[in-house]
Amino acid sequence: MKTEANIVNKVNDVYPSRIAAKPSIEDRKDPVVYSSWTESSPLTKEQTEFYEKNGYLFLEEYFTEEEVQAWKQELKQLQSYYKEQESEHVIREPESHEVRSIFAVHDNNAIFKALAKHEKLTSIMEYLLGSKTYIHQSRINFKPGFTGKEFYWHSDFETWHVEDGMPLMRALSCSIALEDNNHFNGALMVIPGSHKSFVSCVGATPENHYKDSLRKQEYGVPDPDSLTKLADEGGIQMPIGKAGSVLLFDCNIMHGSGSNISPYPRSNVFMVYNSVENKLAEPFSGQQPRPDYIANRSI
Amino acid sequence: MKTEANIVNKVNDVYPSRIAAKPSIEDRKDPVVYSSWTESSPLTKEQTEFYEKNGYLFLEEYFTEEEVQAWKQELKQLQSYYKEQESEHVIREPESHEVRSIFAVHDNNAIFKALAKHEKLTSIMEYLLGSKTYIHQSRINFKPGFTGKEFYWHSDFETWHVEDGMPLMRALSCSIALEDNNHFNGALMVIPGSHKSFVSCVGATPENHYKDSLRKQEYGVPDPDSLTKLADEGGIQMPIGKAGSVLLFDCNIMHGSGSNISPYPRSNVFMVYNSVENKLAEPFSGQQPRPDYIANRSI
Repeated sequence: MKTEANIVNKVNDVYPSRIAAKPSIEDRKDPVVYSSWTESSPLTKEQTEFYEKNGYLFLEEYFTEEEVQAWKQELKQLQSYYKEQESEHVIREPESHEVRSIFAVHDNNAIFKALAKHEKLTSIMEYLLGSKTYIHQSRINFKPGFTGKEFYWHSDFETWHVEDGMPLMRALSCSIALEDNNHFNGALMVIPGSHKSFVSCVGATPENHYKDSLRKQEYGVPDPDSLTKLADEGGIQMPIGKAGSVLLFDCNIMHGSGSNISPYPRSNVFMVYNSVENKLAEPFSGQQPRPDYIANRSI
Repeated sequence: MKTEANIVNKVNDVYPSRIAAKPSIEDRKDPVVYSSWTESSPLTKEQTEFYEKNGYLFLEEYFTEEEVQAWKQELKQLQSYYKEQESEHVIREPESHEVRSIFAVHDNNAIFKALAKHEKLTSIMEYLLGSKTYIHQSRINFKPGFTGKEFYWHSDFETWHVEDGMPLMRALSCSIALEDNNHFNGALMVIPGSHKSFVSCVGATPENHYKDSLRKQEYGVPDPDSLTKLADEGGIQMPIGKAGSVLLFDCNIMHGSGSNISPYPRSNVFMVYNSVENKLAEPFSGQQPRPDYIANRSI
């Protein structure tokens, strides 16, 4: 098969996107859970089945208040440090210029490096992905009160595949809540079951797209008809709970979040674990790879 | 007392706003419920007490599915009519130009005129406001799926007082849901108890402010400290329920709504009942009164 994508990437593109003139919904071609459950698995059989079926799993109060306090303290210090300090891996709110995300914390920061290697996390990741794993991307996100902006629906995998050359769906995200999440402070919403469909998007990826896309999504945006179909089938869930809760979600689940006009900020630690069997190839977009702090190639 | 407001409005301004250099929180000087409860009242004692204390009341599935269907049908026809037709009392989304609100439906449309006079509504309004009532403002709102914008916190009374010359807090709003409301399609949020405080805002009102404020609020915006104090004390509630449910809320309760990225639109009929004892005076802002379709003076 000779497609444009194959010219720049010798890995066969089983999930083409931003190539066709019309959007389409394709079946997922990879497993969701890469291990068979046994009594010694780090998740119960029910949890495993829930994750396989729905594409996410919410672990209520998985970490202690003390652990959360230490991470919040560190986040505060980093925010204050980057207030004046411009840095490539720090993303700000479009209007207020407040620090919204700090990338590569698993690499640059001792405390978050330890968290990324926490056995309570890696054991689950290795189980679900059926191999050793590494951090594809990490960041701490800070969604301020009053002015927290919405983040439109997207599949992370679509972007990681097209822009980073991640070959297959063998990665998952882990979001650790540093604040109590509730229905009114812009918590993450997921469309259960949507991880089993791949929404192929329209529109070619422009060069250096990542500089804008981290603030405002314009390419790799799923079309309204596909979103409506997925939401009609699977509904919409907004897993909420106390600080220290962990949301695991498959790399391909459709997710997004509304704005936060409440007075209460929402912050979390976000880490993506990828299987060592699924390391990045060349981007399928034909563009230059994104920087290492967004898509780790240094392993 | 000689204030600038008194020069243009002979009614004493007991709720000054947009005058002082700093925001402040003042006590409410008016009752919330203007009648004493009896066995023949249209609300139960518990409902009355809840409304008095919290400033809102949610009446689950108060109207039937058939009634809702008829109103939705009428909304669709009006939307389709105003798609091409420019009209002063039709408000559109800033970017997409979609019809967001149609004002004065109690006046211009037979079906909504009948709804405004529905005995199931007027009996409650006359009870809570302790007098005959009239419609101060009415509209149908349409918050589209995917792109429904947030609406920031505000007290309606602050605007109606400053810009319309409504003397006292003796009015209430009634929002009839035409779709099921849930946690993820931008339902209205209220701060319970906030109706008992008046947040005096900073910044003078510019001329013809209403033309922009219906789309994007910039004046009469409560300050973050006051909002945080009110939310810390009263919490935040998001009353949700099936189509046909009615949310009653006091003219001075702090309310707002987040964005709606879900595929599902949210529409409602919104009517403000004012006591005939509380008719509009001259605006306290010293500006020209807003048009009749926004603030009814023709009674």
